[in-house]
Formats: sequence, C-alpha cells, structure tokens
Amino acid sequence: MQTLVELIAKKRNGGQHSEAEVERIIGAFMAGELADYQLSAWLMAVFFRGMTPAETVALTRAMLHSGDVLDLSSVPGSKVDKHSTGGVGDKVSICLAPLVAACGVKVPMVSGRGLGHTGGTLDKLEAIPGFSVNLDTERFATIVREVGTSMIGQTARIAPADKRIYALRDVTATVESIPLIVASILSKKLAEGIDGLVLDVKVGRGAFMKSLEDARALAQALVSVGTRAGKRVVAVLTRMDDPLGLCIGNANETREAIEVLHGRGPSDLVECTYALADEMLVVGGAAADTGAARAQVERAVASGAALAVMEKLVAAQGGDPRVVAEPTLLAMAPEKVEVRADRSGVVTGIDALELGLAAVAMGAGRTRADQAVDHGVGIDLVRKPGDRVAAGDVLATLFVRRATDAPEDRVRSAFAIGEGAPDGASALVLERIAEG
Amino acid sequence: MQTLVELIAKKRNGGQHSEAEVERIIGAFMAGELADYQLSAWLMAVFFRGMTPAETVALTRAMLHSGDVLDLSSVPGSKVDKHSTGGVGDKVSICLAPLVAACGVKVPMVSGRGLGHTGGTLDKLEAIPGFSVNLDTERFATIVREVGTSMIGQTARIAPADKRIYALRDVTATVESIPLIVASILSKKLAEGIDGLVLDVKVGRGAFMKSLEDARALAQALVSVGTRAGKRVVAVLTRMDDPLGLCIGNANETREAIEVLHGRGPSDLVECTYALADEMLVVGGAAADTGAARAQVERAVASGAALAVMEKLVAAQGGDPRVVAEPTLLAMAPEKVEVRADRSGVVTGIDALELGLAAVAMGAGRTRADQAVDHGVGIDLVRKPGDRVAAGDVLATLFVRRATDAPEDRVRSAFAIGEGAPDGASALVLERIAEG
Repeated sequence: MQTLVELIAKKRNGGQHSEAEVERIIGAFMAGELADYQLSAWLMAVFFRGMTPAETVALTRAMLHSGDVLDLSSVPGSKVDKHSTGGVGDKVSICLAPLVAACGVKVPMVSGRGLGHTGGTLDKLEAIPGFSVNLDTERFATIVREVGTSMIGQTARIAPADKRIYALRDVTATVESIPLIVASILSKKLAEGIDGLVLDVKVGRGAFMKSLEDARALAQALVSVGTRAGKRVVAVLTRMDDPLGLCIGNANETREAIEVLHGRGPSDLVECTYALADEMLVVGGAAADTGAARAQVERAVASGAALAVMEKLVAAQGGDPRVVAEPTLLAMAPEKVEVRADRSGVVTGIDALELGLAAVAMGAGRTRADQAVDHGVGIDLVRKPGDRVAAGDVLATLFVRRATDAPEDRVRSAFAIGEGAPDGASALVLERIAEG
Repeated sequence: MQTLVELIAKKRNGGQHSEAEVERIIGAFMAGELADYQLSAWLMAVFFRGMTPAETVALTRAMLHSGDVLDLSSVPGSKVDKHSTGGVGDKVSICLAPLVAACGVKVPMVSGRGLGHTGGTLDKLEAIPGFSVNLDTERFATIVREVGTSMIGQTARIAPADKRIYALRDVTATVESIPLIVASILSKKLAEGIDGLVLDVKVGRGAFMKSLEDARALAQALVSVGTRAGKRVVAVLTRMDDPLGLCIGNANETREAIEVLHGRGPSDLVECTYALADEMLVVGGAAADTGAARAQVERAVASGAALAVMEKLVAAQGGDPRVVAEPTLLAMAPEKVEVRADRSGVVTGIDALELGLAAVAMGAGRTRADQAVDHGVGIDLVRKPGDRVAAGDVLATLFVRRATDAPEDRVRSAFAIGEGAPDGASALVLERIAEG
C-alpha cells in the first residue's frame, strides 16, 4: 500500500486518485494520521492539478460520510434544497423555501452564518424575535413534514471534514479550487437527505466568481458531480454586480424577503426568487417545466399560500408569526442617517462588495466566526443603478445605534454616479446549466 | 502590507517574491506566526511555480541567517568545502579534505549523518576509535587553522530553518524542487564561513537525480545561486549508477578512503576524489587550472603529505591516528558471509540503491534520525561492472554480527549478470558547470 506521502506526490505529479485513495486521505486526516501540514500540501497540489469528476465525487462522499447524514425518509414527497454561492443582499432563501413548500415540494434547508462581506441566512432569520435555528434533527424532520420547510444551522455533526478542511483552505490560499469548492458545497447539502438541489451561482464584482467563464465552470462542475452523486441538480447563473434587492443587514433583509411573499419587493429580488423556485419545482417533480412552475409560483403568492407557510414555519421554530403579516415589526436600530449624493447624474453601479464590508463594519456581519451580529443595523438603498439623481438626493439610509457609527462616506463612494444616460437593465438570470 | 496568506497566494499565482517577502515568510515561520500547514502549502506552490535565482538567493540567505554563521576570519587563507548530493559508497569527503588541505587550501567541513540509503560522513568517521565530531566552533576553527581541515557535525544552531523546513518537505512531497534543494544545501554550506564551494552532483540510478538533464538543472541552479550569494562555486556531475568504490558501510568505507591517501584504492573512487580536489584547488586559488592542480594532488599523495594531514586531523579530533598508517585496524564485524554468483556471465550493473538499502537493513545506516548505526557491518564488493564471473564465484563479502543477519539473496540479486561482452567503462565525471 502506498504511504500517505506517496499519495500527496501522486496528486502533485498529476495522477488521478482512486475512490479508495480519496477516502484514505480524508479518513487519515480526520483520524489525525495525516497532519494538517500534509493535507494543506495535498490541497495545494489539487489547486494546481485539479480533480476529475470521479475524484470530486469521491471527495464529496468522503466528506459527507465524515459525519451524520440526515434521514428524512419519514418525510413523504420530493425534497429539494437551494444553495447560493453568496452575494450581498441575498435573502432569497427566506422567501424561497416557504414559496416552494407552498407549491408542494419539501425544502429541508441547512444554512450557514455570515462571514466576511456576505450575510448568512441564519443571522437574518434570528432577527425574528424568538426564532430558533438550533433544532435537533428529529424536530427538523417533523417541521419539514408538517410545514413543508424548516431552516436550521449546520451542526458540528454535519460534514465535520468540510469544516476542518475549509478552515485550513482559508489560511493556506487554497480556497479558489473548483473541485474543492464543489466538494465543500455538495458534502454539506447531500448530508441534508435531499433528492435534488438547485444552485444559484453568482457572477460579478460582488460575487466570489467575477467572470462568467469561472462561474460557468463552477456551475458545470457542481451539476456534474451532484448528478454523479445521484441527485437531480440544476444550476442557474445570476448577476451579482450590485446588491440584490434594496436591503443589506439582517432584520431589514428578512423584512424585504417577507415582502416578496406579499407580492411586493424589488423586482431583482422577485426575479431571482421566482427563477429559483421554478427550477426547484421542476427538480422536485411538481411541475413539468419552468413555464408551468411559474404559474404555480405566482398562484402561491397571490393566494397567500406562501405567506401561510411562512407563518407556520416561524411559529414552528418559536418565532413571533406576526412579523409575517406585518414585516415592519422587524425592529431596526433607532438612529437613521441619510446618505446623500454629492453630485448629479445617473447611478451607473453600486459596489456590492464595498457595501457588504460597510455593513460588516456597522455590526451587521462578522469577520471572525465567534463574533455576534447586531440584527437591527443595516443599509437600505434608496437608489439603484439606472436611477437619475440630483446632488443632495438621498442614496441610502443607514440604521445604526449611534449616528457617529454610520459609514456615510464609504456608502456614498460605493455609488458610481456618471454623466451618461442610464443603461438598460441587464437580465438577472444569465444562464441555466443542467446535465446532458 | 500583504497578509501571509496573500503571500502564499502570490506564489501560487506565479508571482515573484521580493527579498523582503521571502525573509518575512521564513521569519514568520520560525517565529510561529506562519503555521506548518501554511508553509507546506507555500512549499507546494514553490514546487509548481519555481523560484527565480534572486528568490532562491533570498531564501538561502533567510535560512542561513536563521542561525549562527561560523566566523573563520581567524583562519588565514582560502577556505573551500565540497558538498555531494549523496550516493551509495560515497566516502570521498574523508580522503578529499586532507588531500586538499595538504595542497594549501583550508577545508572547514560540516557534514551530516546517513539517512535512508546513503551513508553519512560523520557515521563513517566515528568508526575511527575515539574520533569526535562534536566540537565547539572555536575548536573547529583552531583545527582548521592548524591542521588545514576539520570535520564536524551540523549543530542545531546552523541553519535551524533548514532543519525545520526539510522535516516538513520530507512528509509533504515537496522534496523534489530545485530551488528548495538549492537553498537547503547552500544555507548550510554558507553557514560554514567558506569562500568557495565545489559541488558533486550525482547522476544515475543510485542518485537522487536519475537523469543528466535533472542533475544539470540542479548543478546550474546551485552554481548560479551560490555565485550570486558571493561565493566561488563550481559543480561537477558524476556518475552514480553503481556504488562508488568497493565498500558500503562505515569502518570499511573509512578504510577505503584512507587507502586513497596511500596511493591505492579503487580507480573510480580515486578518479572522483582527484577530480573534486582539482576543482577545490582552483576555486581556492592554489592552482591556476585543473591540470596544474592535478600535479599538486598527485604530489601530495606520493609525498605522504596528505596522509600526514589525515593523521593530524584524526589526532586533533581525539581519534586513534594509527588507523591512518594501518587502515586494516578499522574493525569489521566478526562474521563474514560470501555472496556467490548463481550463474556465469558478465556483471553488467550493480544496483547501488538496493545495496544501500541492504546495508541499512544490516545496521550500517538508519531509517529514522534517532537510530544508532553499527560501524562494523557492511558490504565489500569483490566484483564490479565489467567483470566476467563464473557461477559460484564470490561477488561480495558481507560483514555481520550473526551469519543469519546477512541479506545474501538481496545482495546477489543487486548484481545484474548478462550474457554479452563487458561494456567499456564510461567516464565517472560527466560534466563541469561553472558560472559564465
């Protein structure tokens, strides 16, 4: 049998690992037989040499089976989740899950917390008074069965190998590797006991993938590996140049997501939510195609069915269900600071990354995993790209605990104001990638 | 200032480090601010991206200055050392140092112990009763000044960064990187306070570098980086398909090395020693060219001057100087086992790697740094490539403590015996590489 060092050398030299070899590497790492410094050398070799889809499937499975796999066999019907590669203002999960559940597809959703410039669904949900994301897996399964959806946090027992490997990648410059990204995403999602998965791969200056080519490569790898792992998987590429919707924070983002279920909300957020819901209904077998799905989705909003699921979900997880009918009950911080344009012109772009970082600096996010967030602080955009503004017009409203905490200049400079005519808005959904 | 992770990413992306960046990486590693797992990722990135000569000089200097640099300014005259990339039966240092010293060039030599299939000069020297390789640097300088040469072991204070980095490379499949090899070799040698260095880069199946191309690339890098670091450096490429000389072990290798100073010894060993001595005299300024050097070298052997230096060296380091006049005093293990040919033909090759490993298994070497060696066990070759043998002829003699410990079959099978006529012996010295 080859030594572990020989396995590192094999990947370094461009060799392809067998499934058994990948299992051995991950197993030895989790058992402490392969040291951190050996795994990081292997990760860097993977960065340079890549992995075949078969190797990536093996890595996904090895990471998946490093922990518990949720058993949702007691939940009848098709179970489909969504994963987004993360963007600023992306609160889609919160409205998407009840909407899809209202259309008859179960959505068991295990989410993460925010880190760096992108927020996390769990932090946003916890802005709802009383809402708990720490449920045991039995209670989770019960809520999915009875309500149609439940949203909880990743436990330490789900894909612990991913947790340890990600921590290592983060400090060894080995994050930007498609097979490693794919295995990280899929190992956690496959641990949810789902049948299908819809992936929202963000593209643009506010996203992890800046170019369409990179995003497409990641989407294709996710679909290919997920499909080989036995799931129905579809990916959509969506634009993330500007923030999604008008709100960046926690309570304000949850409020905005609930607005979508009321049939309101900004058009880009609605478009993104509906497009993903369409795919989830098709993947879950509730609609024959995305056209048919769209009719169901619109009906679920118009009829109030999606709102009703949201109310049940909030109640089931201990939250105050009144926020669903009355989302303005979600409390924002008391001090409002208006950010005004210092010149006239057309808003040609809003730097999503910069606003994400500004929100973190305000306390809405965290730079270290052990930091607490302030659910009430955040940024509400008043102007979006394409809008014409005059000097002195309000561009955004900042909600802070003390007016002196407001990063006014930073937010102002995130708005690019040009001289020309507004560009026509480009499509939010850029591409759809499915197997075959 | 960039973060350490950004520096790893810079090398990963093919960037070139500044001298300050390399210093920062090594400094942070030694200070515990850059973790083992981060350095190993960087080392793997260096494996893939390489380093420029300027980066390699910076790495060499950073590793060199992680510890003490010997001050030999009290020793008058030119100080030149030799480094070999290691081969089976390579006892050249033991006869080379006194020979060169006898010709007027000082040789301050800091050597290593054997690990794996190649033996170490220190282990071989310690076969001389009483010989100590653990001298403080003051005593070392005194002996170099008075005798012309001294041979000691690497202390923990010489290039400690190299020690730690090498230990990491060994278990992370990052050994085979020319800039890392160059910095490792040169950082230790430059810490000796030398003016010049002659490198013996071994090529062939018994060497680290199997192909002439690889060996040439390493030699060129060593010469280029060593020269940029301000030293006079020459490299010779020498063949290492078969073991060098007839002895593999410790006491027997030291005996064979002393034979060379008596004007005896196997021709390949004499050729290798003289060729390196020629270069050291030229590098040290004691001869105008290698032709003139050769005349001095031959005179130093014929006159007994080299033997006299060897006697003084042994006495100065506490050893029994009688072994120099009478090298058979070096005691071998009592049991002699003869390995005989099982067929007739011509010896077409002897697998140096296999014999090196057999000698380790007999106790002459070590597989872990903390193992003790038995100086008296070893292998004496009776036949060499090109020799015609009949079935039943003795191929080699094994010296062991118990006859049952003799790896007879393993040694026999290391001899390739063919049908054809003996090949003409090929040259031992293949190429000479110098700057400009």
